[in-house]
Amino acid sequence: MKPFVSKQEAAQQVRVARHRAGMSWAQIAEQLGVDKEWSTAALLGSHPMTAEQAHVVQELLDLDDSTAEALQMQPYRTAITEDVVSDPTVYRFHEALMVYGPAIKELIHEEFGDGIMSAINFQMSVRRREHPGGDRVVVTFDGKFLDYQW
Amino acid sequence: MKPFVSKQEAAQQVRVARHRAGMSWAQIAEQLGVDKEWSTAALLGSHPMTAEQAHVVQELLDLDDSTAEALQMQPYRTAITEDVVSDPTVYRFHEALMVYGPAIKELIHEEFGDGIMSAINFQMSVRRREHPGGDRVVVTFDGKFLDYQW
Amino acid sequence: MKPFVSKQEAAQQVRVARHRAGMSWAQIAEQLGVDKEWSTAALLGSHPMTAEQAHVVQELLDLDDSTAEALQMQPYRTAITEDVVSDPTVYRFHEALMVYGPAIKELIHEEFGDGIMSAINFQMSVRRREHPGGDRVVVTFDGKFLDYQW
Amino acid sequence: MKPFVSKQEAAQQVRVARHRAGMSWAQIAEQLGVDKEWSTAALLGSHPMTAEQAHVVQELLDLDDSTAEALQMQPYRTAITEDVVSDPTVYRFHEALMVYGPAIKELIHEEFGDGIMSAINFQMSVRRREHPGGDRVVVTFDGKFLDYQW
Amino acid sequence: MKPFVSKQEAAQQVRVARHRAGMSWAQIAEQLGVDKEWSTAALLGSHPMTAEQAHVVQELLDLDDSTAEALQMQPYRTAITEDVVSDPTVYRFHEALMVYGPAIKELIHEEFGDGIMSAINFQMSVRRREHPGGDRVVVTFDGKFLDYQW
Amino acid sequence: MKPFVSKQEAAQQVRVARHRAGMSWAQIAEQLGVDKEWSTAALLGSHPMTAEQAHVVQELLDLDDSTAEALQMQPYRTAITEDVVSDPTVYRFHEALMVYGPAIKELIHEEFGDGIMSAINFQMSVRRREHPGGDRVVVTFDGKFLDYQW
Amino acid sequence: MKPFVSKQEAAQQVRVARHRAGMSWAQIAEQLGVDKEWSTAALLGSHPMTAEQAHVVQELLDLDDSTAEALQMQPYRTAITEDVVSDPTVYRFHEALMVYGPAIKELIHEEFGDGIMSAINFQMSVRRREHPGGDRVVVTFDGKFLDYQW
Amino acid sequence: MKPFVSKQEAAQQVRVARHRAGMSWAQIAEQLGVDKEWSTAALLGSHPMTAEQAHVVQELLDLDDSTAEALQMQPYRTAITEDVVSDPTVYRFHEALMVYGPAIKELIHEEFGDGIMSAINFQMSVRRREHPGGDRVVVTFDGKFLDYQW
Amino acid sequence: MKPFVSKQEAAQQVRVARHRAGMSWAQIAEQLGVDKEWSTAALLGSHPMTAEQAHVVQELLDLDDSTAEALQMQPYRTAITEDVVSDPTVYRFHEALMVYGPAIKELIHEEFGDGIMSAINFQMSVRRREHPGGDRVVVTFDGKFLDYQW
Amino acid sequence: MKPFVSKQEAAQQVRVARHRAGMSWAQIAEQLGVDKEWSTAALLGSHPMTAEQAHVVQELLDLDDSTAEALQMQPYRTAITEDVVSDPTVYRFHEALMVYGPAIKELIHEEFGDGIMSAINFQMSVRRREHPGGDRVVVTFDGKFLDYQW
Repeated sequence: MKPFVSKQEAAQQVRVARHRAGMSWAQIAEQLGVDKEWSTAALLGSHPMTAEQAHVVQELLDLDDSTAEALQMQPYRTAITEDVVSDPTVYRFHEALMVYGPAIKELIHEEFGDGIMSAINFQMSVRRREHPGGDRVVVTFDGKFLDYQW
Repeated sequence: MKPFVSKQEAAQQVRVARHRAGMSWAQIAEQLGVDKEWSTAALLGSHPMTAEQAHVVQELLDLDDSTAEALQMQPYRTAITEDVVSDPTVYRFHEALMVYGPAIKELIHEEFGDGIMSAINFQMSVRRREHPGGDRVVVTFDGKFLDYQW
Repeated sequence: MKPFVSKQEAAQQVRVARHRAGMSWAQIAEQLGVDKEWSTAALLGSHPMTAEQAHVVQELLDLDDSTAEALQMQPYRTAITEDVVSDPTVYRFHEALMVYGPAIKELIHEEFGDGIMSAINFQMSVRRREHPGGDRVVVTFDGKFLDYQW
Repeated sequence: MKPFVSKQEAAQQVRVARHRAGMSWAQIAEQLGVDKEWSTAALLGSHPMTAEQAHVVQELLDLDDSTAEALQMQPYRTAITEDVVSDPTVYRFHEALMVYGPAIKELIHEEFGDGIMSAINFQMSVRRREHPGGDRVVVTFDGKFLDYQW
Repeated sequence: MKPFVSKQEAAQQVRVARHRAGMSWAQIAEQLGVDKEWSTAALLGSHPMTAEQAHVVQELLDLDDSTAEALQMQPYRTAITEDVVSDPTVYRFHEALMVYGPAIKELIHEEFGDGIMSAINFQMSVRRREHPGGDRVVVTFDGKFLDYQW
Repeated sequence: MKPFVSKQEAAQQVRVARHRAGMSWAQIAEQLGVDKEWSTAALLGSHPMTAEQAHVVQELLDLDDSTAEALQMQPYRTAITEDVVSDPTVYRFHEALMVYGPAIKELIHEEFGDGIMSAINFQMSVRRREHPGGDRVVVTFDGKFLDYQW
Repeated sequence: MKPFVSKQEAAQQVRVARHRAGMSWAQIAEQLGVDKEWSTAALLGSHPMTAEQAHVVQELLDLDDSTAEALQMQPYRTAITEDVVSDPTVYRFHEALMVYGPAIKELIHEEFGDGIMSAINFQMSVRRREHPGGDRVVVTFDGKFLDYQW
Repeated sequence: MKPFVSKQEAAQQVRVARHRAGMSWAQIAEQLGVDKEWSTAALLGSHPMTAEQAHVVQELLDLDDSTAEALQMQPYRTAITEDVVSDPTVYRFHEALMVYGPAIKELIHEEFGDGIMSAINFQMSVRRREHPGGDRVVVTFDGKFLDYQW
Repeated sequence: MKPFVSKQEAAQQVRVARHRAGMSWAQIAEQLGVDKEWSTAALLGSHPMTAEQAHVVQELLDLDDSTAEALQMQPYRTAITEDVVSDPTVYRFHEALMVYGPAIKELIHEEFGDGIMSAINFQMSVRRREHPGGDRVVVTFDGKFLDYQW
Repeated sequence: MKPFVSKQEAAQQVRVARHRAGMSWAQIAEQLGVDKEWSTAALLGSHPMTAEQAHVVQELLDLDDSTAEALQMQPYRTAITEDVVSDPTVYRFHEALMVYGPAIKELIHEEFGDGIMSAINFQMSVRRREHPGGDRVVVTFDGKFLDYQW
């Protein structure tokens, strides 16, 4: 059987290949014609790509065939290990959920009733907000409200 | 020594007292003159209140003195236990971080360089976005970028 | 402040009170006019009841006011602790997920594409299926398919 | 000694080989003459196959001899790791058990007495139920009731 | 509502009450007319007793009504916590499973085929075997074989 | 240095080699002249074999020299990982200990006083007991009683 | 039923009562006529005391009847929780086992063959060894060797 | 870069090489002119060796250059994994600490005041003590007392 | 027996009592004539106080006798639970250790050789360092070097 | 695709290469013109290096190209695993945080108000302090204070 790589290995290869190619995640997204948030997540293993999308990236980053194949496989969306959680850049989001999670829950129920924000019918964005006291990172979670329906 | 309650117990009392009083979290915030996100988090134990703020809430919700005192104490900001994490309304945010955390990290570094979004110089909001396919929950995390400085 | 009980304590009281009253879960559901699966879950803390529903149950089972109040509170839906997971009657479902979870995932993706079964727009049922080799427990999970939509 | 592969490695090879062959899980099951739920689970390592079944699949998917051999080995049925549990498609089932597990337990005892649903004398199915509000995933667990007998 | 106790609390009370009454577990079993293994497990919370059985024990050990009630409740069979596992008398059985578990599995499959020993249609015994080199503890696990049947 | 394999790797090789050779565990034990329970445990890494025993098995199963060497090494007796514990065939024994462990402890103390069953001066057996309601698996743990002696 | 306390609660009471009485652990042992290591362990819950021993301690430390009763109960010997492990005075022993455990294992096997040091037929001592560079703590573990006997 | 091995890999190689060479740990220690406890620990990765010591062992056991190099590297002294802890020969020491740890702590404080036994300025020994009832393993921990000094 | 409180409960009472009394930790330290770092740690349960010190604090903060007694008890120094670790103010120190721990280890070995910084013969300080870009928190750990001595 | 190594593998190679080259961490830092604390952390994977810095180190330590490349990659700053935490040299810092963490928190809040020490705008140092009773390790954490700002 021809060799193959896992999506986790493919993600590691993409990170190194992007570094070597000197391309930004935004430039890759532009070539794919999709949001940079979606394509970065997909390249790191959280969404399956179409064969066409995988081929575009293979060309841009000079990836192996097995890597391009892995990008098309249906993922197990479990990219964050304990190691990733404790990275300071990622951890601050977990800390914010720890500090504000119960308040978010109460305010969702107050505004929408008993239910949840979908993480499937969902998109997120990462933006810069300029500010005289220092520019700010603004990350938005935007998902459809789903109410408990028996 | 006069009896006292922990911030966790105070939070449980606030939840029940609000239910009994029939007030919304937004109405409490309005009486306090602060964002509903901040006051809800504070009432659930994540921020210390001033004596004046605690007194206003005590009147609104008919709380005991020991509860009003607890609201003023400096918190250990560790409100989310494993139980809270697995509540479906809260869990979806953890799932979103699991699926998109590595992408958020890459895009923050691409836009800002090596550093983090502060969770201290920070605010969040919970809003409704109307949508023909079903209204959406929009939660925004907005924190100052801090770059690694030796 | 008047005393109150948590939803977990209320669930323990409901279990004992039902035993004392000699009523079945199905009879309670009939009095409430809802599915027995929903009402049993609600009485054990997984769904909030309306004031009317809580009052009906309070009368049927001779519950305290604080218990009836607890049944109406918005839950943290985290009723299963490690202790519950390892109870043999519950564990067999976890074992079935362990043995068949990856197959379920593949077959959902094959039939529906990339997405999930909702656990919110969802209902389940517990039925008996008569069988000459011994009657069978049939538990059905029935949730709306949600596809990943960016 | 000739090389061999574990059932976990065989499962990874089957997933990739099926993708390359462009066959559905249902088509493989049809060739084997068994339920698609059983064969998918077996191919992912949860049931041992006969030599004949393994040979059929080897031909269909162009597998190595060592992979076909692994499919026949007696499994340790522990296919779900923490990574699999947290995949959103699989997690929703765990969430449903968390929310409804105690109710399932009470209703099994009410209908059948003290005992369990067997996960050994057991079958499950994954079906689509058409619905005007969006089609639904219906997963059925069907196991023989076993009562506690000393 | 009248007070009640959990099965765990009842088990603690039974242990102390038996000590105070100076009765052996075997004597209690004899009064109940059942195996000492079953009754000891039941009194420690692992099986529900009938009202009659609970009444007999209540008389023998001078238990409260709430304790006698708890003995009749349907259990969550999760009596062993981490604390119990590490007690040396209990731990040796876990160690034996650690050292011999894989061999037990192979030998069950060799003798019976693919399946399990039931822990539900099951009984165990604890006996003394006299031996010149020191008497021996003999614990027997005896459960019906269940083969995987789809 | 000549290559070597761990006892865990040797155990995996033995399992595959036995499958290829079409021999039963009992036949191997017969060739070795020991109990099948002991030899199976030893071949899976839980007891060191003598050079003679290892040589017999090497011949029977066509093992590499490094595998035969590994069978003779002093083991770390830690063959059961979390994966092994959750295999249904092995798990039922853990469940039986969970349900009956406290009763076993009480009955050992009642019969023997304060002490333990040795897991070192110990043997176990796996037998079939024919039964009209379905044959039964009987596993016996038989260890010397050791009392606490200061 | 008369109130009772657990062995853990009894241990807490003994620690405070000894502090109040101003007695040393050695003095208590002397009154009991046993090694101070044994009696201190027993008073902290690791060994059952006879009624006579418990009475002597009750008099010395002015303990309640329920505490004296608890000292006589058969223990679950699981006195060390995670909290105790991480206490610096206790942790150093765990660290020594971490650093030297594999060497201890090799040297026991070299000297005695395949087997263990009993922790049941066992005694330990805590002594001071005077030393010009600072006095030393000498803790000795002394247990009967048990060899693996099938 | 020339290949290298970790101290863990080196320890595995040393164990096999010693078995092949038929030397005892005590003989190796004698050649090195150090205590067998120290050298065994060092060879298993818990202490760095000098180049001279590593060279002596390389000659005795016919080790590769990379193994001899690894023996000289500064260790992370974390040789005991969960697997090692649960090996019966090692576990008995953990059990003894579990049962006697609180007593050891009280007796150290009683004899020495508030402080600890050093695990750095420390040595241990493993000896045989002949005994008519069966020879005994005597393991001594001997470390300098360090008192809390601000 | 007269009531008593644990050191953990005493620490909670001290925190509330200090808040009520409006005194700073530094003022308490001044009254005790010790470093504020030491006295704050002692009042939170990490060091035993003398009877005189406990009496001074009892007067200053109007504490109960049982609280003053608890301050004198020998502690288990395990004040940080998981909750405390994840508090953002405390967590940053754990993060710093995560990021810089291996570098600290290398630099200690380079400067001092093989050994450790004592956490017993140890003091720490918390200071403000004024800085035009924002004042800085400076926490210093200062412990005696201990080299590995066999 | 050309081979690459992870930052963890690069760190292992740097440790061995430095040992082979006989250079100190301080000498490497001097060649780079940066603090030894920063460069050691960077070489062990906690900070990205510039291409120039990586090149200098490659020359000094004779590293492979892939290692030099890895040093420039953006890190996940999660260098400390459980293994690293329990190394005695690193563990003492965790112990100090365990014993003194709550006091540090109180004193930061007393001096600065509600907020944290930044671990991003941060530097640390490792120094020797000569002392007649034995030289001391002094580790200083120095980070900007950040107050909670909504």
